[in-house]
Amino acid sequence: MLKLWWYFLCVFEFKITKKQKGSNARTGTLKTPHGTIKTPVFMPVGTKATVKTLSPEELHTLDAEIILSNTYHLHLRPGEKTVKQQGGLHKWMNWNKPILTDSGGFQVFSLEQDKGLKQTAEKKAGARITEEGVEFKSHLDGSKHFITPEKAMKIQHDLGADIIMAFDECADGQSKKEYFEKAMIRTHNWLTRCKREHTKLNKKQTKKRALFGIVQGGTYKSLREESARFVASMNLPGNAIGGLAVGEKKETMLKMIEATVPHLPENKPRYLMGVGTPVEVLEAIDRGIDMFDCVLPTRLARHAAFWTSKKLNHIKNQKFKNDSTPLDKNCTCYTCKNYSKSYLHHLMKESEIFGHRLLTIHNIHFLLNLIRETRSHINKGTFPLFKKSFIKKWQKI
Amino acid sequence: MLKLWWYFLCVFEFKITKKQKGSNARTGTLKTPHGTIKTPVFMPVGTKATVKTLSPEELHTLDAEIILSNTYHLHLRPGEKTVKQQGGLHKWMNWNKPILTDSGGFQVFSLEQDKGLKQTAEKKAGARITEEGVEFKSHLDGSKHFITPEKAMKIQHDLGADIIMAFDECADGQSKKEYFEKAMIRTHNWLTRCKREHTKLNKKQTKKRALFGIVQGGTYKSLREESARFVASMNLPGNAIGGLAVGEKKETMLKMIEATVPHLPENKPRYLMGVGTPVEVLEAIDRGIDMFDCVLPTRLARHAAFWTSKKLNHIKNQKFKNDSTPLDKNCTCYTCKNYSKSYLHHLMKESEIFGHRLLTIHNIHFLLNLIRETRSHINKGTFPLFKKSFIKKWQKI
Repeated sequence: MLKLWWYFLCVFEFKITKKQKGSNARTGTLKTPHGTIKTPVFMPVGTKATVKTLSPEELHTLDAEIILSNTYHLHLRPGEKTVKQQGGLHKWMNWNKPILTDSGGFQVFSLEQDKGLKQTAEKKAGARITEEGVEFKSHLDGSKHFITPEKAMKIQHDLGADIIMAFDECADGQSKKEYFEKAMIRTHNWLTRCKREHTKLNKKQTKKRALFGIVQGGTYKSLREESARFVASMNLPGNAIGGLAVGEKKETMLKMIEATVPHLPENKPRYLMGVGTPVEVLEAIDRGIDMFDCVLPTRLARHAAFWTSKKLNHIKNQKFKNDSTPLDKNCTCYTCKNYSKSYLHHLMKESEIFGHRLLTIHNIHFLLNLIRETRSHINKGTFPLFKKSFIKKWQKI
Repeated sequence: MLKLWWYFLCVFEFKITKKQKGSNARTGTLKTPHGTIKTPVFMPVGTKATVKTLSPEELHTLDAEIILSNTYHLHLRPGEKTVKQQGGLHKWMNWNKPILTDSGGFQVFSLEQDKGLKQTAEKKAGARITEEGVEFKSHLDGSKHFITPEKAMKIQHDLGADIIMAFDECADGQSKKEYFEKAMIRTHNWLTRCKREHTKLNKKQTKKRALFGIVQGGTYKSLREESARFVASMNLPGNAIGGLAVGEKKETMLKMIEATVPHLPENKPRYLMGVGTPVEVLEAIDRGIDMFDCVLPTRLARHAAFWTSKKLNHIKNQKFKNDSTPLDKNCTCYTCKNYSKSYLHHLMKESEIFGHRLLTIHNIHFLLNLIRETRSHINKGTFPLFKKSFIKKWQKI
């Protein structure tokens, strides 16, 4: 047992490189069995074991250091058994860098809520929550499934990611305090079970996985503090903040981060789940966050939207039809180096896949580049100025 | 005028490298302002100025030497004026190798016929043919358009391809002989007008374009011969065979090629439009064809189908769910070197774009590789054996 934890200290070692004065921002490195990640880091989302439209080589060129895949989707189809039998996610999808899988908890709840049948009680539309776990209906065929913390660990171990996430209850953002508390306590109980199961499973693995705990507590400072203290006490290689960016105001989200971070250990990476927009990412880094994931760059591309250093824009806008300039004149991505707005306007108007690819490349580059610049500014001690100047230029998102 | 033709002899020079004994197959090279093509050649189709799902770099890696784009689609959207204003097709789509554009004639007729309203007279569903040109309705918004041979030349010159095609009437494959003849004569008259207009326009261009004539004549040997003689008499840098692979039997198609080729000049490239399957391509090369284009590799990929050296296969077949082998064990394409059938099965089941990309790469590689092997065998004098052995292995297509 001691040996296992010693191994963790080495394999999932997190080193802080530099701390920014007058801010909680820091740069660091996180070791994993598939390579070392520089933090802060943004993880592009590859829901179904593919970052939509892109090849692994394109992600390497974009300097993506780690990607996220969704346990819920892969569990339903093709099933973790297939992925395991094919040698695990890395081999199957031809991705040799780190992978993080979420636990499926978020989807179990949010996909149901997407149907517009919001319920804040244990019995949500299609999903029934007990202390034991969650029974839910597949969004694909309505078939019933039951996921427990133990099962969430087993599925993720079968998928074979480097970092796996605890199974948590992500309460609806509009819930009452009583319910947030209930969901938080359940999340803590589940975390204890996750850790136990994960430790057992990890002993059998040659390439070890790291389990990250998740702080819940909704929009209540006191709950967030309590949850952070509990999660920190589990002494895991990393800690995440869940249940944010689910419809609450940006100010609320930032307050919750501020309430949480001081209670999480300094020497472990902090991961803010499902965030976010360029401005949100900068604000969170300023408050001590090290890791992010978000579907925004890929989803915006699908809807013909792209970021520039000033704002979010839409390529289908008729004014771009004869515009021979790149998406962003200062951008160094493949798309901006080789294609005009005119051509991209045409491709997206015609629903051509190559247009979707090119916008995806640009948007992921934009966010990864923002993070690269952020790291550089933290290392130079100029992050506060950089953040201020970026936000000043930013019109809307 | 003489100077212009001398220029053509140099710029669009076609050299025969090797002739296969006991066959009409030959290898050669065709110069264009954007580089020299090795023939026989297959041209992937980039209908709307993009070979569906692929980047130019991927096409370079696949060793695609020339691509085809569709005048009809680009004329309707975004319009040739936009493309011209953006510096022409090559610059706009970031493709620095040769491009051939069709004249739009085929689409004007076939897209109307696709609606199931077949009519063999001059008045087709939505399209009205006169000596002057064709009036047709856009398949996008029903708006009326009128294309003449002169206009087809102007549009293609604006698009800026290296090789442009004459405006022809592609009669429905089920037409009567009288109608095939009428359409053929009209095609010949139009060719005369095309050449006149093209010559005029070409004088203004710094990078010259080559006009290819098109042989019509339906499924009648005598008409094909007559048409070939007429088109040959126009002394253009290349000659095409149109109106085949439109529903007639493979044997009929091959007979029509056999009737046509002897009347086309030996020292000019011969282009069989819209063909085809691997076996059809080999049969046509055997009969003296040098150039091909076809949507099959890209379209099959969209429908989850792929070629192997033995047959056409479908990746969504349940038996591939846990199959860790590549699409084709002897294939050297990017897809086969890096991904299993299991992963591709998953991607296509989930309608993931990356799956569509990977199948497109495989299918285009398959056809381009077949052509590469064919050239090599012609050069070694072993083409007949190669063809026989390939067809023997081939189960169905």
